[in-house]
Amino acid sequence: MATISDIGVSAGINILSAFVFLVVFAVLRVQPWNDRVYFPKWYLKGLRTSPIESGTLVGKFVNLDFRSYLKFLNWMPEALRMPEPELIDHAGLDSAVYLRIYLLGLKIFVPIAVLAFSILVPVNWTNNTLEKTDLTFSDLDKLSISNIPLGSPRFWTHLVMAYAFTFWTCYVLKREYATVASMRLHFLASEHRRPDQFTVLVKNVPPDPDESVGELVEHFFLVNHPDHYLTQQVVYNANKFSSLVAEKKKCQNWLDYYQIKYSRNPSTKPTTKTGFLGICGARVDAIDHYTSEIARISGEISTEREKVVSNRDAIMPAAFVSFKTRWAAATCAQTQQSRNPTQWLTEWAPEPRDVYWDNLAIPYVSLAIRRLVIGVAFFFLTFFFMIPILFVQSLANIEGIEKAVPFLKPIIEMKVIKSVIQGFLPGLALKLFLIFLPSILMIMSKFEGFISLSTLERRSATRYYIFQFINVFLGSIITGTAFQQLDNFIHQSATEIPKTVGVSIPMKATFFITYIMVDGWAGVAGEILRLKPLVIYHLKNWFLVKTEKDREEAMDPGTIGFNTGEPQIQLYFLLGLVYAVVSPILLPFIILFFALAFVVYRHQIINVYNQEYESGAAFWPDVHGRIVGALVVSQLLLMGLMSTKEAAQSTPLLITLPVLTLWFHRFCKGRYEPAFVKYPLQEAMRKDTLERAKEPNLNLKSFLHSAYVHPAFKEVDNEGDESDEDLVSTKRHQSKHSSKHSFSSLPEDPERSLL
Amino acid sequence: MATISDIGVSAGINILSAFVFLVVFAVLRVQPWNDRVYFPKWYLKGLRTSPIESGTLVGKFVNLDFRSYLKFLNWMPEALRMPEPELIDHAGLDSAVYLRIYLLGLKIFVPIAVLAFSILVPVNWTNNTLEKTDLTFSDLDKLSISNIPLGSPRFWTHLVMAYAFTFWTCYVLKREYATVASMRLHFLASEHRRPDQFTVLVKNVPPDPDESVGELVEHFFLVNHPDHYLTQQVVYNANKFSSLVAEKKKCQNWLDYYQIKYSRNPSTKPTTKTGFLGICGARVDAIDHYTSEIARISGEISTEREKVVSNRDAIMPAAFVSFKTRWAAATCAQTQQSRNPTQWLTEWAPEPRDVYWDNLAIPYVSLAIRRLVIGVAFFFLTFFFMIPILFVQSLANIEGIEKAVPFLKPIIEMKVIKSVIQGFLPGLALKLFLIFLPSILMIMSKFEGFISLSTLERRSATRYYIFQFINVFLGSIITGTAFQQLDNFIHQSATEIPKTVGVSIPMKATFFITYIMVDGWAGVAGEILRLKPLVIYHLKNWFLVKTEKDREEAMDPGTIGFNTGEPQIQLYFLLGLVYAVVSPILLPFIILFFALAFVVYRHQIINVYNQEYESGAAFWPDVHGRIVGALVVSQLLLMGLMSTKEAAQSTPLLITLPVLTLWFHRFCKGRYEPAFVKYPLQEAMRKDTLERAKEPNLNLKSFLHSAYVHPAFKEVDNEGDESDEDLVSTKRHQSKHSSKHSFSSLPEDPERSLL
Repeated sequence: MATISDIGVSAGINILSAFVFLVVFAVLRVQPWNDRVYFPKWYLKGLRTSPIESGTLVGKFVNLDFRSYLKFLNWMPEALRMPEPELIDHAGLDSAVYLRIYLLGLKIFVPIAVLAFSILVPVNWTNNTLEKTDLTFSDLDKLSISNIPLGSPRFWTHLVMAYAFTFWTCYVLKREYATVASMRLHFLASEHRRPDQFTVLVKNVPPDPDESVGELVEHFFLVNHPDHYLTQQVVYNANKFSSLVAEKKKCQNWLDYYQIKYSRNPSTKPTTKTGFLGICGARVDAIDHYTSEIARISGEISTEREKVVSNRDAIMPAAFVSFKTRWAAATCAQTQQSRNPTQWLTEWAPEPRDVYWDNLAIPYVSLAIRRLVIGVAFFFLTFFFMIPILFVQSLANIEGIEKAVPFLKPIIEMKVIKSVIQGFLPGLALKLFLIFLPSILMIMSKFEGFISLSTLERRSATRYYIFQFINVFLGSIITGTAFQQLDNFIHQSATEIPKTVGVSIPMKATFFITYIMVDGWAGVAGEILRLKPLVIYHLKNWFLVKTEKDREEAMDPGTIGFNTGEPQIQLYFLLGLVYAVVSPILLPFIILFFALAFVVYRHQIINVYNQEYESGAAFWPDVHGRIVGALVVSQLLLMGLMSTKEAAQSTPLLITLPVLTLWFHRFCKGRYEPAFVKYPLQEAMRKDTLERAKEPNLNLKSFLHSAYVHPAFKEVDNEGDESDEDLVSTKRHQSKHSSKHSFSSLPEDPERSLL
Repeated sequence: MATISDIGVSAGINILSAFVFLVVFAVLRVQPWNDRVYFPKWYLKGLRTSPIESGTLVGKFVNLDFRSYLKFLNWMPEALRMPEPELIDHAGLDSAVYLRIYLLGLKIFVPIAVLAFSILVPVNWTNNTLEKTDLTFSDLDKLSISNIPLGSPRFWTHLVMAYAFTFWTCYVLKREYATVASMRLHFLASEHRRPDQFTVLVKNVPPDPDESVGELVEHFFLVNHPDHYLTQQVVYNANKFSSLVAEKKKCQNWLDYYQIKYSRNPSTKPTTKTGFLGICGARVDAIDHYTSEIARISGEISTEREKVVSNRDAIMPAAFVSFKTRWAAATCAQTQQSRNPTQWLTEWAPEPRDVYWDNLAIPYVSLAIRRLVIGVAFFFLTFFFMIPILFVQSLANIEGIEKAVPFLKPIIEMKVIKSVIQGFLPGLALKLFLIFLPSILMIMSKFEGFISLSTLERRSATRYYIFQFINVFLGSIITGTAFQQLDNFIHQSATEIPKTVGVSIPMKATFFITYIMVDGWAGVAGEILRLKPLVIYHLKNWFLVKTEKDREEAMDPGTIGFNTGEPQIQLYFLLGLVYAVVSPILLPFIILFFALAFVVYRHQIINVYNQEYESGAAFWPDVHGRIVGALVVSQLLLMGLMSTKEAAQSTPLLITLPVLTLWFHRFCKGRYEPAFVKYPLQEAMRKDTLERAKEPNLNLKSFLHSAYVHPAFKEVDNEGDESDEDLVSTKRHQSKHSSKHSFSSLPEDPERSLL
């Protein structure tokens, strides 16, 4: 058992390492040549130009102004300075609301911590139960519920506190739900005209032998929405086409690389091999080879394009149908169209950049089967993932390697290398699995057939949270693999399970404190350094970049990563709520995590991340639901723990808590969730009327003309002709537009003080 | 343990008693003076007139034609003869689909029984496990799974059969769901113009200081549905008004009674007392008293009416909003209107006669709280209902009575009376509770705030089924009160519960066979006798009836009683599915129940019941869901049973079954449920277009004018003026209309062969 001083030392080390990260970051970020790594958002908005193009030679790459090193923490107030409305304008509602999750953590846990430390800690501390026993214990345990003697009336304090914490959490959650819902409605209402406001995605168009999908859709909606139908855009199966486009782009990259290489060293013509990965095959002149490859693929692209557009089989039974008014789109998206509820399914069209094109044509029955398959697969992934890993670990031992590659034996037998392999290999498989887990979950969601990136991310986040709940939270409390736990649980009674888990909770406080410091604090501090994008950017910059445009493409601003970030936050909510009554000592660590993460992510959102899509905070019901779930789990575990403390008279009062909490959840669901899944007609009508008054001669049809064209087509079109960008609302266009308003809020620009 | 011959004797007795019921019914139904008890439906449709008015004096009351007594079972083929489309026309879709539940039972269980008796029974029979043991056993047990030795490979037969039964049940369920869904859509499409097709119920209209509710609603919908809004009808709080109307009617009844009494015996003027129930108070002339009472109440009614219409507080924040087209009503009902999802809630208006007026004005928060309260109350009702009954029983013993009323002591002490009291009293409290349970559940549903009678009945049915599942099904298998079971279950592991229940199942087969015979067979045969309505009709006929109209009102055709009937059927589905693999001997008894009930209820629906409302088979998703639930329960219990039979290798295969079944349920839900909760726009548009072509000058506004006026207002209006019945679609009007088509299908009329 760790003592307070142990934890203190550990905290010190972690704070120090986080501090080192921050110092390194502060140094790296003021170097001009890293500017595009740490401020890509501003470049994408067109509000910042390369500092490398001006200044002295050395000044181009190294920051020589020592004043800027002294103010190495001043990015923090900067990050906090931008007010929320401007932040929404700058980075979108998704990002702004995502930050509110961290803020919510602070709002919930700061008052809880104050209350716990002023009431619970003294109540726990002023006992001497642990001192009487022969068990080894630490000062930390004296602060926890373990220090209360069995059957003591002091447990009433914990009961009252459990009620107080629940009511406070619910109160904050409800207020936050209301705020986010009104932010979302305000955001949707104040938005500029966007194609998705007028457009509905129609799936499962029934096959018709006489008409093409386009005609069929047009006729159906002309009949059933005669006054409102405007136009439609069928969906092509352009998967092969878009892979060809991607291949061409890759060849173009290689060509660029070799051309730069040649221009730097004109004496030797660069060569490459035509075979696999350029390792085997005949040696040819690289530049000629890729030039001819590009020409070949370009030809293929145009034939494939012909084929896609003309071939009936390439048209998928889905279409984007646009209406004359937002009102009509809102009614169509919310109603059932056909007698057969598996045909003519309508839903809001996602934003054009949010569409996941590959999944648009999955028929209803296939979707149902996919959901079953993925459900079963996820169950096995969660509970049996250790089996393949154990198998790989059993293979990847010293003897196995020696058998497979006998000539390496003398090297492996060296003592240092042997111990490295033995220490390293067993963990490697698990570590690799955990690194790839979010991607595996994302692939599962894609297979399941969701049609927008935002839904894919939300679904993956849910799964990732469940995985973490079972394998990290329960797995740490009760040792053993998830499958062993499952086996235990189904052989235990409903009253036994919370007891088993609840009893172990106080003992694991130290472990989770360490976990929060290593995973939370260090993870957040590492996030701001952006080591991977830093390295990749400089590699690309060196090998590929010719023009300013290439350099822009070499930037990898990244996104928030909702599917990995949110489950992590939720784990901290869970830990905080579970330990609030049991061992309040955990709370300061969680609060510190939320505070640090809030500042770091606010900085990143302002300066770095570039969201791929805007869902209007559609994820909030998930966030809310998971926190309520964590609250219920904490109540059940407390009930289990209390029942072992011979404080049984508290059980009826404790049962009331989850019942009330679940009722609260249902109430909030009914009260606020519609704001996230439906679009009120009142809103739609208001915007329509306003627009009709402002722009009576608006040509909506041309505005919507190519909004929902497959991005691969657009890419090819844009190569020759950039003019239709005005009609198509792409990333660039939008951001330039909105940047007008946010010009005043540029963060202090390191280059200005420099050059 | 009962032997086969015991069961045979018991079955014989029950069949005989059912037969006696049927003979009595056959005799009673051909008596002219019972005609209105056994054929009220035809009177209500205006297709049958009293046989009493013609013929000889004796022939008026007793059927003298002995031929009609010989053909005493010919109502059965008659009942089966009417084809389904005509039945729908005659009695509505609700009734026709309700009959399909019995048919569904036959469709599921007849093939299952054939398969079970040709495969499972021989497999079970050809063992001698039971003979080897010292346990007492019967031939019945030799047919069941108990006769298979532990760990025998013969259990594979049961496993395969479980799969076969599941797939067959799911197949039939899916086909039936599809049929009912298309019947519903066809019914809705082929219906005549009805007010509810154009009307949406708007609840939770926000308060406005400047405008009345009517104005507010009108403005809101003129703004948000400008092209479609037609008219609105605010909802008055007419609860006091309607109770006055009811009181007036009661006085009128008494007045009639005394006037008839006086006319029969003009020598003595009838008198009554003014106090409680006519028992105490001053003695007055009855006719004068009630005449003045009626005059007083009539005055009160008109002042109350003034008050309701003019007083702003009497207007509830709800309104029926009508649109110009079905399309517009369908879109409005399915969409969200306001930013605040708890205001301006729209839903399909129920049929005018389906509206439950008292619940129209409950605000959102109150609804949420009511749901919580009722949820908790129902939990306690289900698990703790024995506590008050035990309390009453402890009070109502001989000693208690002797203490309370000491002067009865000599009578009570008599041996015969003492034994009657001791045998009768303890059961009385329980019996009374069970009789009143459906009413209690209905009151709970009403308190919960549902706004239509059909929803109230559906909700009560769900609760009644849960109550029966826990207290009848589980309660019979595991002895002890529901609370003791609950206590056991939460102290048992998830694998232990199906085992505990599963093991006891084969032993309870005899009990359930008896239950099916007594509750099912006798219950159905008793239903056709209609003893209670028979007695009440003749009492009313004697004391109150003056005119033909009074006689019509004295008829009590009754309804199907979905809230009590459907849960009973579901219990038989549950028993059939659970015992299909374990003790197939139960199946013939269940099949006989379904067959008998089908014929009886078909007869009653054709000749007797008069549905209060028409919901278009909206209850089918509930029926489907409960059968699927029963299937899952049967699979879990089989798994529990098998795991005690040392046939553990079958567990993974058995776990797959509930997973697949639940997936099937989700699939069906997505595929068919929308047909029951939404109204496809395609349908609406088609009907609108047809109507516009047929009746271009239709005055819809006058058609809808008073459709949704509170029935109490209508009643008062109709007293003076019957002319607006053409506009208001009341029971009489509708049935007269549809009877044109069904004239050909009159059942053989006993009076025709008589007079």
